[in-house]
Amino acid sequence: MRDPALLTPSEARGLFREGLVTPTSGWSRGWTQANLIALPRDRAYDFLLFAQRNPKACPVLDVTEPGETSASIFAGDLRTDLPAYRVYENGEPVAEPTDVREHWRDDLVCFLVGCSFTFEAALLEAGVPVRHIEAGTNVPMYRTSRECRPAGALSGPMVVSMRPVPAELVETAARITSRYPAVHGGPVHAGDPAALGIADLDRPDFGDPVDVRPGEVPVFWACGVTPQAAVMRSKPPFAIGHAPGHMAITDARDSAYLVGVPGIVP
Amino acid sequence: MRDPALLTPSEARGLFREGLVTPTSGWSRGWTQANLIALPRDRAYDFLLFAQRNPKACPVLDVTEPGETSASIFAGDLRTDLPAYRVYENGEPVAEPTDVREHWRDDLVCFLVGCSFTFEAALLEAGVPVRHIEAGTNVPMYRTSRECRPAGALSGPMVVSMRPVPAELVETAARITSRYPAVHGGPVHAGDPAALGIADLDRPDFGDPVDVRPGEVPVFWACGVTPQAAVMRSKPPFAIGHAPGHMAITDARDSAYLVGVPGIVP
Repeated sequence: MRDPALLTPSEARGLFREGLVTPTSGWSRGWTQANLIALPRDRAYDFLLFAQRNPKACPVLDVTEPGETSASIFAGDLRTDLPAYRVYENGEPVAEPTDVREHWRDDLVCFLVGCSFTFEAALLEAGVPVRHIEAGTNVPMYRTSRECRPAGALSGPMVVSMRPVPAELVETAARITSRYPAVHGGPVHAGDPAALGIADLDRPDFGDPVDVRPGEVPVFWACGVTPQAAVMRSKPPFAIGHAPGHMAITDARDSAYLVGVPGIVP
Repeated sequence: MRDPALLTPSEARGLFREGLVTPTSGWSRGWTQANLIALPRDRAYDFLLFAQRNPKACPVLDVTEPGETSASIFAGDLRTDLPAYRVYENGEPVAEPTDVREHWRDDLVCFLVGCSFTFEAALLEAGVPVRHIEAGTNVPMYRTSRECRPAGALSGPMVVSMRPVPAELVETAARITSRYPAVHGGPVHAGDPAALGIADLDRPDFGDPVDVRPGEVPVFWACGVTPQAAVMRSKPPFAIGHAPGHMAITDARDSAYLVGVPGIVP
């Protein structure tokens, strides 16, 4: 197979549509990746408000019309072109299919939420290693003790992703990622997992554990699995999310979400 | 009267509550100013989606629960503590009162939208003059020929504010304001009003005209009156906005919306 980093979004989506299941960290370098949460139209306002109130965890990149299967930044089919999905009924995960056409409903509104995989290329370019890419595993993600601001019927904890960073590069990692607020921006914490209510780094709630080596600091970024944690807590009758780490690869360049670039943006 | 720039948000709101009517540019330096649009709950999703699709013109800072009269970043009374309001019925402005208690409805959701007055202190500090503050007038605002992305029943043109900037300072003005995306960020255009479909700078659609002097370039920023232009076009049964230029002075520091500041933001 060709280097996944060099695949266009359309090529990557084609492989997922044909059934390939893999975490997407490191795929389609230079292109924005997104979390998916699809909710019935009558829950859409609550979610959009939840996202407005929790922008660090839920930066909304795009919203579909009810029943639509593509989006302005995602030319593929949202029902088939992610590597894997989670289907929820009353907050319980009931299936993890690679295609959700048989679960689809015409009243579903899809929200694409920024994903921190997007800024990993910029980290690598600055010499900040990304352990889960080196290891070929999924990023570790954790529920935290930090509550999101609720909205309507939706509440839940903030979820974070973790990357071990050599101590001398933590400031660099914070500086670089803070320029990408639409894909979670700078870290929410560095150092002590207990400060976020995380008991054991080796037992992530989603994804795979990674080694934290001597001289490295665990650095935590807000994560777009937060909407699914809210679904599990708040138990809407129906929802579809991506399988954590198995993202929507969009047609938007990561540079489109880089801020602090001076100039006139028409 | 004390220098309006030195008043706290609470002091400024007290004066407006007592009946003072004035544009708020230059008031309460260091504090974030916001546009108000209040819509019935059954129109709230359309507006929040409209804002998500038009983030340059409609950066949402805060959203109230239906009927609430204060907000997380605005401890005052949203019905009385702005200098002036516009009340709309079916898209027509029907009143411009200084107090909207008699028009209030329990199903109104208030959206506070970032205002470019917020970054004017940073412009002044960098030596970029702000003509309408010098002149003691309201900022000039114009409907443009640029259509917003519609959402549900809401559509309308982008509205812009204009500040004349000495040619050699345009880059500085663009650089500084681009660091404040939540209050419209960098300019959308500099130079040719016709490029935005503006026929005559001396006849703004809202606010007051200002001189553009030899050696100065008219610079245009997206404006939070855009929601009211959408109300006028889309004719929801009822809406309340601020009178253009007569803003909500919030309890949020302008530095809270400064991006590109490296670091860990808990």
